[in-house]
Amino acid sequence: MAVYTEVPDDDMAAFVARYGIGDLLSAKGIAEGVENSNYLIHTTSGHFILTLYEKRVNPADLPFFIALMQHLALRGLTCPQPVVAADGEALGWLAGRPAAIVTFLDGLSLRRPGPVHCAEVGRGLARLHEAGAGFAMRRANALSVAGWRPLAEQAGAAADTVSPGLAARVAAEIAVHEAGWPQGLPSGVIHADLFPNNVFFIRDTLSGLIDFYFACTDALAYDLAICLNAWCFEADAAFNLTKGRALLAGYESVRKLGEAEVAALPALCRGAALRFLLTRLVDWLNVPPGALVRPLDPLEYDRKLVFHQRVADARDYGLRR
Amino acid sequence: MAVYTEVPDDDMAAFVARYGIGDLLSAKGIAEGVENSNYLIHTTSGHFILTLYEKRVNPADLPFFIALMQHLALRGLTCPQPVVAADGEALGWLAGRPAAIVTFLDGLSLRRPGPVHCAEVGRGLARLHEAGAGFAMRRANALSVAGWRPLAEQAGAAADTVSPGLAARVAAEIAVHEAGWPQGLPSGVIHADLFPNNVFFIRDTLSGLIDFYFACTDALAYDLAICLNAWCFEADAAFNLTKGRALLAGYESVRKLGEAEVAALPALCRGAALRFLLTRLVDWLNVPPGALVRPLDPLEYDRKLVFHQRVADARDYGLRR
Repeated sequence: MAVYTEVPDDDMAAFVARYGIGDLLSAKGIAEGVENSNYLIHTTSGHFILTLYEKRVNPADLPFFIALMQHLALRGLTCPQPVVAADGEALGWLAGRPAAIVTFLDGLSLRRPGPVHCAEVGRGLARLHEAGAGFAMRRANALSVAGWRPLAEQAGAAADTVSPGLAARVAAEIAVHEAGWPQGLPSGVIHADLFPNNVFFIRDTLSGLIDFYFACTDALAYDLAICLNAWCFEADAAFNLTKGRALLAGYESVRKLGEAEVAALPALCRGAALRFLLTRLVDWLNVPPGALVRPLDPLEYDRKLVFHQRVADARDYGLRR
Repeated sequence: MAVYTEVPDDDMAAFVARYGIGDLLSAKGIAEGVENSNYLIHTTSGHFILTLYEKRVNPADLPFFIALMQHLALRGLTCPQPVVAADGEALGWLAGRPAAIVTFLDGLSLRRPGPVHCAEVGRGLARLHEAGAGFAMRRANALSVAGWRPLAEQAGAAADTVSPGLAARVAAEIAVHEAGWPQGLPSGVIHADLFPNNVFFIRDTLSGLIDFYFACTDALAYDLAICLNAWCFEADAAFNLTKGRALLAGYESVRKLGEAEVAALPALCRGAALRFLLTRLVDWLNVPPGALVRPLDPLEYDRKLVFHQRVADARDYGLRR
C-alpha cells in the first residue's frame, strides 16, 4: 500500500476539471493498491478514486482495463466505473503518468474472511466471468506458465537466501507445469488477482470488486484457482476445507464447472501458487531503497505449494459432485 | 504519512456504532498525519476521520486535544470537530489504542504555498489564537527550550554522522537559548505545528486547520515563529521576504503584535528552527526497521538556522512598522 506520486498543487485540480465532475474539494492519498498511486477525491459532485498508473502498469494495457470496467459495470457487476472526460477519453495524464478517475465504491475489505465471505466471492467471481462474456478485447496473461521461467531467472540463485533449496523447488515446479499445463479450457476475462483486499463487503454481503489491473484473457478456472489460494488457507498455510467448499459451491451456483475444468483444478491451483510465489520472490529480492511498501512474504506460497502437491483431485479443495 | 495500525475486521464497525453516525460503509487508510493512524470513513450519515493515537501521543494529553477542538469549533474556527459517543465520551478504544472520530474537512493542503496562502495562514493563525482565548485547560510545551537539551542528548555524537560538526552547532544553539529565551510574552493556546500539510485551502482560501496534537500553552508569537519557518523559506533555505511580509501582515490584520513580541521574534524564530532540527534529527537517527515513513530531513532546519542567526530584527522577516 502506498502513494508513490506526489502531484503538484494545481495540476490535480486542473486534471479533475476535465472530467465534468465539479470542482475539487479534497484529495487524500490512500493506502490501497500496491501497484499504483490512489487518491480518494471529493468534488462538488461526489466521491471518486483518482489513480495514477505507476511503472509496473504497461500504458498499452490501460485501454483494455478501462474498457473492461466499463463493459462489466454496464452488465451490472459492481466495479469502479471509469469517468469519461469531456473529450470522450477516460484516460488522461497527470504528474508525468497516465491517470484516470473511477467512481467510488463503498464497502470494506476483510483481513480474515470466513466461509460466508468465500461463498460470496465464489458467486462474485462466476458473475464476473459471465459478465465478461462478449468482451471483445483480449489481453494475454503475462504471468501464466510461459512467464514463470523468466521470473525464476530474475530471482536466480538469490532465491536460496530467502529459503534454502527454494531455487531448486521452483525449478522443479516450473518443469512440471511446462510439461503439463492444462490447455483448451473454457476461457474469457479473468480478474487474476481477486485477493481479499480487492473485494468489498458491507456487513457480510459482497458490495464490489476492484483493481482490474491484472485482468486478462485466460482459463476461467484458473481465476478460481487463484481465489482458492487467496481465500481458503489459514495463516499457517493449512487449507480450510469449509472455506474451499463454500467458495466452489458459490461459484457453481452461478456457473457450473465442466469436466475438463474439474480435472484441471489441482494443476491450476498448484500453478497459481507458483505464480504468486515467483512474483513475490522477485519483489522481495528487489525492494527499492526508501520503499514505502513492505513486500509480501513469498514463503507463504512455498508452504501452500506443499499442500497442492499432495492433492489427488478437485474434491480435496471441497468440490462436491 | 502512514497507517500504522491494522484494525481487525469487525472491530472498526463496532467502534463506529458507538458514535450514532450510522453504519460503516467504507474505511480507507489515508496518508495523512505522521504521528497517528488515520482512516477516512464513510457511514450512512456522512464522512469522518477516525484516528488511532499511536505511541508518540501521550494518552493523558488526549482530553486536552479533544476539548480544544470542541472549544475552537464552537468559536467558529474551521477545524475537525470530535464526535461524541452515546455515553458522552469522544474518546474510545480501538485495536489496543485510544481512538476518536472527528468530522471530515474539505480542502487541499499545498506543497508550494505562495504569498496569498501565507497571508491566509497568518490570518488563520491569529484567529486560532483569538478563538483559543478563554480555553480553560493548560498543557505545557514539552518541545520548548527546556526540552531541547534532552533531545540533543538523545541524538548524541551520532548527530555528526548526519552532518559534520552538527552536534557542536546544536550545543551552541541550546546554550544561546537557555541563556536568553524570551519570557513573559502574551501566551495562550498555540497550534505549534502549523505546517502546510496541516492547513487546507479551497482554491486560494483557507478552509480549515487540522492536526492539533502538538497544541499546547505557550507564547503566541512562538506559533508565528514556527509558521515563518514552515511557510516562508524556499527549498534552498532562502527566506522569501514577500511570503514573510504576507504572513506577518495577515496575522496583524487580526491580532496586532505587542512590542515585546516584536523584539522577541528573531529569538523565537531561531528557537523554532532548532526545535524542528532536533526532533527531525532524533527521528532520522531512529528509523524503526520496516518503517513505512521516510523521516524528514533535519538539515533543512540546520540551513534555516544560518538565516536566523544573521537576523538583526523583526523587519528582516518582513514585519512593517
